[in-house]
Amino acid sequence: MSESFKTKTSRRAFLRGSAAMAAGAVAAGQARAAGPDPLITEVQPWASGLGDPVDAAPYGLPIEHEGDVIRRNVEWLTADTYSSINFTPIHALDGTITPQGCAFERHHSGAIDLRKKDYRLMINGLVDTPLVFTYADLERFPRENHVYFCECAANTGMEWKGAQLNGAQFTHGMIHNMEYTGVTLRTLLEEAGLGAAGDLSDKWVYVEGADASSNGRSIPMDKALDDVLVAFKANGEALRKEHGYPVRLVVPGWEGNMWVKWLRRIEVMSNAVESREETSKYTDTLANGISRKWTWVMDAKSVITSPSPQAPITHGPGALVISGLAWSGRGAITRVDVSLDGGISWQTARLAKPGEDKALTRFYLDTHWDGSEMLLQSRAMDDTGYVQPTKAQLRDVRGENSIYHNNCIQTWWVRETGEAENVEVS
Amino acid sequence: MSESFKTKTSRRAFLRGSAAMAAGAVAAGQARAAGPDPLITEVQPWASGLGDPVDAAPYGLPIEHEGDVIRRNVEWLTADTYSSINFTPIHALDGTITPQGCAFERHHSGAIDLRKKDYRLMINGLVDTPLVFTYADLERFPRENHVYFCECAANTGMEWKGAQLNGAQFTHGMIHNMEYTGVTLRTLLEEAGLGAAGDLSDKWVYVEGADASSNGRSIPMDKALDDVLVAFKANGEALRKEHGYPVRLVVPGWEGNMWVKWLRRIEVMSNAVESREETSKYTDTLANGISRKWTWVMDAKSVITSPSPQAPITHGPGALVISGLAWSGRGAITRVDVSLDGGISWQTARLAKPGEDKALTRFYLDTHWDGSEMLLQSRAMDDTGYVQPTKAQLRDVRGENSIYHNNCIQTWWVRETGEAENVEVS
Repeated sequence: MSESFKTKTSRRAFLRGSAAMAAGAVAAGQARAAGPDPLITEVQPWASGLGDPVDAAPYGLPIEHEGDVIRRNVEWLTADTYSSINFTPIHALDGTITPQGCAFERHHSGAIDLRKKDYRLMINGLVDTPLVFTYADLERFPRENHVYFCECAANTGMEWKGAQLNGAQFTHGMIHNMEYTGVTLRTLLEEAGLGAAGDLSDKWVYVEGADASSNGRSIPMDKALDDVLVAFKANGEALRKEHGYPVRLVVPGWEGNMWVKWLRRIEVMSNAVESREETSKYTDTLANGISRKWTWVMDAKSVITSPSPQAPITHGPGALVISGLAWSGRGAITRVDVSLDGGISWQTARLAKPGEDKALTRFYLDTHWDGSEMLLQSRAMDDTGYVQPTKAQLRDVRGENSIYHNNCIQTWWVRETGEAENVEVS
Repeated sequence: MSESFKTKTSRRAFLRGSAAMAAGAVAAGQARAAGPDPLITEVQPWASGLGDPVDAAPYGLPIEHEGDVIRRNVEWLTADTYSSINFTPIHALDGTITPQGCAFERHHSGAIDLRKKDYRLMINGLVDTPLVFTYADLERFPRENHVYFCECAANTGMEWKGAQLNGAQFTHGMIHNMEYTGVTLRTLLEEAGLGAAGDLSDKWVYVEGADASSNGRSIPMDKALDDVLVAFKANGEALRKEHGYPVRLVVPGWEGNMWVKWLRRIEVMSNAVESREETSKYTDTLANGISRKWTWVMDAKSVITSPSPQAPITHGPGALVISGLAWSGRGAITRVDVSLDGGISWQTARLAKPGEDKALTRFYLDTHWDGSEMLLQSRAMDDTGYVQPTKAQLRDVRGENSIYHNNCIQTWWVRETGEAENVEVS
């Protein structure tokens, strides 16, 4: 008898014989006693005729019954929808990959239409030979594949002043996680030659997009030569228009604003530009009115996606899967703890896979719900030893004037009805 | 100076100074000498106005310029489009993840419309307690996440008799690779209890779908208890209708026909059913007329996706990236070799990531093309030591009567023009 045949007899039956029986899994005999289930006993229309042929649509979309699993706006958040943002429906997703079609968008002057044939990327400044690359040129350099999360610095930003938005999509949905294919920025900088730049340790690159906002950002040369990608595919296919087609910058672990879309120019410089996007925006004002700048890294963070306000518990007491996402811009997630009582006691969650560098990690706590109310929290740790702080800890250091870089522990109050609400615990 | 600042001076400049200069990357100075490029010197319309606002569509689609990257049919292949197949555009993809919207479909009686509320999964036969699960029940069991390839047994089947179809999409596109979220079949079988089945080493499960074809298949208990998943998400979101919404079986490394969609019933049995789908279909007829059955595993295989007939070389001699996919139903890919001369000499390709168990592996050969014709081949090896065979080797063993399980080395003839064609080498 092979190893796989040995049934683990010590393993708890999750639903059978539990209090969840009536609301959960139903033994066939019991179902019959309670009255025949026509979905079992009768031939169903979908089992007695033809379905859709292949190729009913040129590119497949989700089934209509999943029509609520979409990006959503918060209308009052921005003055218009061109310099605006929407949110990934993370409350309805599982696993780690975010499909491009529901991955959050952030534009500063709208998503532009830029064809591959019209695409040019200039590298200039302190380089040996200024170069201009076409899209076809980029395809001739060695490519790499990496899965990385991209998080807007403003993700969870509305929560600085209290529990504002009721749903993980809105509090934590400015994030997505994709497999990128591209050329390293290092490869392209070396193609232009960095001899002219002299000592590289104090140099910068300034990166800008082809849209009207240009969204220029300064990146230290150390990072530029480390893991930054000039990417042209996400999850195997071309970048979507709203994600920077045909080429965007991928700056692993750093705030999404630096992941310049429709990338058109990279200038090697002696100094940071101190552009609008890194002075009047994307800085963190402390309690004393002084702003931190160059806060590029997205620190370790996590959120429970289910149950959550948009994903309530719809069954009675018994087996319950608590699930969520964790990530760190400094490396890999090593552990996630979950609390059911607002941070008094903690249980270590199961990571679906070992944490990957600067990518989303899915965690699960397979537990038993007794039907009473819960204050759900999750707490992420990364391989630098960093522990995700509470909101109180974060406020102690940073005050309440910030918009960006709120990575505090989130609390969902789950009631006896299974409904959940965004709350703060003191 | 940090490690990342040390420019590798021995590293070859890929395009600069090479013969590809004129056709490839262009130094800005040279571009100006040849006449100003208005895409560099003039303000572009996309840089001087607003683009699209966020949320222009409820669910995002690829940009219209990528409208040719879609699943495609071969009209003469099947009598109708309800019991038919289409092909993933692998020639245009990169990385490893296949987006659901362009992942191949295979239906035996069309893709059915089955809502979560109407979903039932029965486990019966030699179990302690027959059970019926609702969709909500399944969500209460511990979940796993795994990336696996799914390949139709008939993938490359038209090539048994010679080079038939001109394009990697058509010769090798009955494959996709997704991150699945689901409950192990082992968990559900243990919930029903396997004590009644006695010795498990000679038992089977029979799995069937809710569509009119039912597409029933027998799976040995050993595999059923090993790594089979009852999956409800792919690439983070709900399965698409055409991929079995709301629930499909995932049978890692085994032929796609066993990955039953719209899964409705699992019966524990003493024998295989020997259904239509495992007797008159999905067997391999040898030269002597006798058919092999139970050929479940998809053996190690690879294909060059670019250049290929649908993805010709569009530039002159010089730097060239050759890229492709490799996979094995027996484990992880450990090595891929590439030949430019029809199998006379081989170079070891670079794997983008270490091979993963029963998942697609992306390989690259970063090479220099001298502009002469090539006979491109790739050859995969897996961690069992298996080496992908040539077509001649496969025919020696299997004859030419088969449809299924053709995993032989593919040849593309690349001409001096850069165009490529499906050919055989003797």
